[in-house]
Amino acid sequence: MLERYGHGGDLESAAKAYGLDESSFLDFSANINPLGPPEHVLMQLEGALSSIIRYPDPGHRQFKHILGQKLKVDEDNICVGNGAAECMSLILLGLDPQKVGIIEPCFSEYRQLSEQFDVEVYSVYGRQDMDWKATTEEIGELLQQVDLLFIGQPNNPNGVQYSLKELCTLAEMAEQSHTYLVVDEAFIDFIPQYHQASLLSELEKYSRTLLVRSMTKFYAIPGLRLGYTLAHPDIIRSMKSKQVTWSVNGLALLAGEAALNSGEEFERRTLELIANERVVLVQGLTALGCEVSPGEANFLLVRLPDPWRAIDMQRELGLRGLLIRSCAMYPGLGEGHIRIAVKGTDANLVFLKEIKQVINKIA
Amino acid sequence: MLERYGHGGDLESAAKAYGLDESSFLDFSANINPLGPPEHVLMQLEGALSSIIRYPDPGHRQFKHILGQKLKVDEDNICVGNGAAECMSLILLGLDPQKVGIIEPCFSEYRQLSEQFDVEVYSVYGRQDMDWKATTEEIGELLQQVDLLFIGQPNNPNGVQYSLKELCTLAEMAEQSHTYLVVDEAFIDFIPQYHQASLLSELEKYSRTLLVRSMTKFYAIPGLRLGYTLAHPDIIRSMKSKQVTWSVNGLALLAGEAALNSGEEFERRTLELIANERVVLVQGLTALGCEVSPGEANFLLVRLPDPWRAIDMQRELGLRGLLIRSCAMYPGLGEGHIRIAVKGTDANLVFLKEIKQVINKIA
Repeated sequence: MLERYGHGGDLESAAKAYGLDESSFLDFSANINPLGPPEHVLMQLEGALSSIIRYPDPGHRQFKHILGQKLKVDEDNICVGNGAAECMSLILLGLDPQKVGIIEPCFSEYRQLSEQFDVEVYSVYGRQDMDWKATTEEIGELLQQVDLLFIGQPNNPNGVQYSLKELCTLAEMAEQSHTYLVVDEAFIDFIPQYHQASLLSELEKYSRTLLVRSMTKFYAIPGLRLGYTLAHPDIIRSMKSKQVTWSVNGLALLAGEAALNSGEEFERRTLELIANERVVLVQGLTALGCEVSPGEANFLLVRLPDPWRAIDMQRELGLRGLLIRSCAMYPGLGEGHIRIAVKGTDANLVFLKEIKQVINKIA
Repeated sequence: MLERYGHGGDLESAAKAYGLDESSFLDFSANINPLGPPEHVLMQLEGALSSIIRYPDPGHRQFKHILGQKLKVDEDNICVGNGAAECMSLILLGLDPQKVGIIEPCFSEYRQLSEQFDVEVYSVYGRQDMDWKATTEEIGELLQQVDLLFIGQPNNPNGVQYSLKELCTLAEMAEQSHTYLVVDEAFIDFIPQYHQASLLSELEKYSRTLLVRSMTKFYAIPGLRLGYTLAHPDIIRSMKSKQVTWSVNGLALLAGEAALNSGEEFERRTLELIANERVVLVQGLTALGCEVSPGEANFLLVRLPDPWRAIDMQRELGLRGLLIRSCAMYPGLGEGHIRIAVKGTDANLVFLKEIKQVINKIA
């Protein structure tokens, strides 16, 4: 199993497991924009490499300023983090919940971070016939049992979305039950109509709702680590009170500033590519007898045809230089579930060709 | 006052305060190797910029492997952190002390991080006639009151060192009183005979002593964030249990690997430069009526001639494009204390010329 550290994208483990060079893999196990970073982000970084001799700005002032203007959000509502993962840890440290709620299957860090910080985890299972969504009533009940609830919009690993109306209902319920609602929007910018899928426009109404966002997936800079949280200034202050000085590195801030200025063309090209390529993958996989969960994100939850197990397929494809995420360890999913990223045209064709060969060879 | 975030090196605040461009300052307020990063570190980074599209290795395996070989330390004894500051936070989170001891004046993060994580801080003052060292008896008494004690070797901001014999005595006392001893060696590689100043060679004997080290000062990469802790595997496990996945970014790991392979020439040149330039600064400042604390680190604690206040001198020099660290806020020091980095020959001459003009003009 490749998920030694609980996640995809671990090329070092893959290289050891399959005897191939790290750079030779097509990595479908991490959900990163297949376009790579906007060109001028790389150019800016190249021109600013010598800036590593200086400390990063501990106040993240320039990045926060640009972000605030772009989102039309006051800077007091922003906490910048060393990746969305640090944001989540600051949320747990800053708000100090005793009980956290999650909806399985979901991003494994919700549980892992909670357990790291000795917080009890309560969960409900999404309904398989609703693409692993839970009803607002079920989530509402969970909200009353816990101090803080994580929900993915879209949810990882299955890409399902809640409607804005459902999210508003949940945010309202969170207010009433004095619970924090943490909406993980790490992948929201891959959704075609993401402005209408995000609670951002309604955020001011809710003093207990937090949005966690990532700069590393859409702008393809996961190696640099950059994320942020949007919430009421009181929440932001609590988070920052636990943040270590200089936790966000200088090149990440610089890349983030450049990324925010990268214009609409990059956004448009990304959304178009993902939308088109998602269809290609869904059709190809369905033709092979796979069940593909619906959703509009840049990744797909796939149930392999019986009797394929994720772990075996991972190995077969790994030996062919293709990495996928086994989802067998997600509570609520089965041994036949994998997750793949939607990548570029050529990579996706290679993937479909190889998985077809594997399935036909061994079937 | 420039230390809005509690530290030196804040060029953005300086630019605003003095109306100059960030890049135009000579920064004596941050203690970074004046040689800059080893050339091949920058070359490696330049060649590997596109690697930011991949997640960092959450196990830090390659860096840990090289570091373990270089220090002749088992990898189980190493925790890699997002700067020494993250190491300190992981120490506090992982070992969960209720009471922390410090010896004032010292690096402000010992107190700040402790307070961030709701740990009570006990302090003793170093004796002014001993260059702000405390006696082992005084520290021994403090060790009995607390669960964890931070000590700087060399100590920031005054550069004073404890002898290896003193440190062994303290480590032994820490064992006996079931207290953790955290030796902050962030600047130890600037000390000419640093192998003899570090507890590293004795570390195996002590199950409760931790060494915290920084890669960012000596190798001049503070913008990238990289540090590590050496300690008993049980301690390392506790620290890692609180670490957020991917907290160390990919370029930092890569720069660290390159830096560890940068050879003895860089080390030799650095030590020679610092040793020579320290003498120049000490002589020049003494001639101006300053009192300079002894020590062999790459920074100097300086008491300005009466009636100069640090805050006034900071402003005078800031307007001339020179940044210094005011030490007026360090408990145990006075309003006339500043700290300056030992920089390269040209910068140091500019500094001496400018501070002479300021003192003579206004005296």
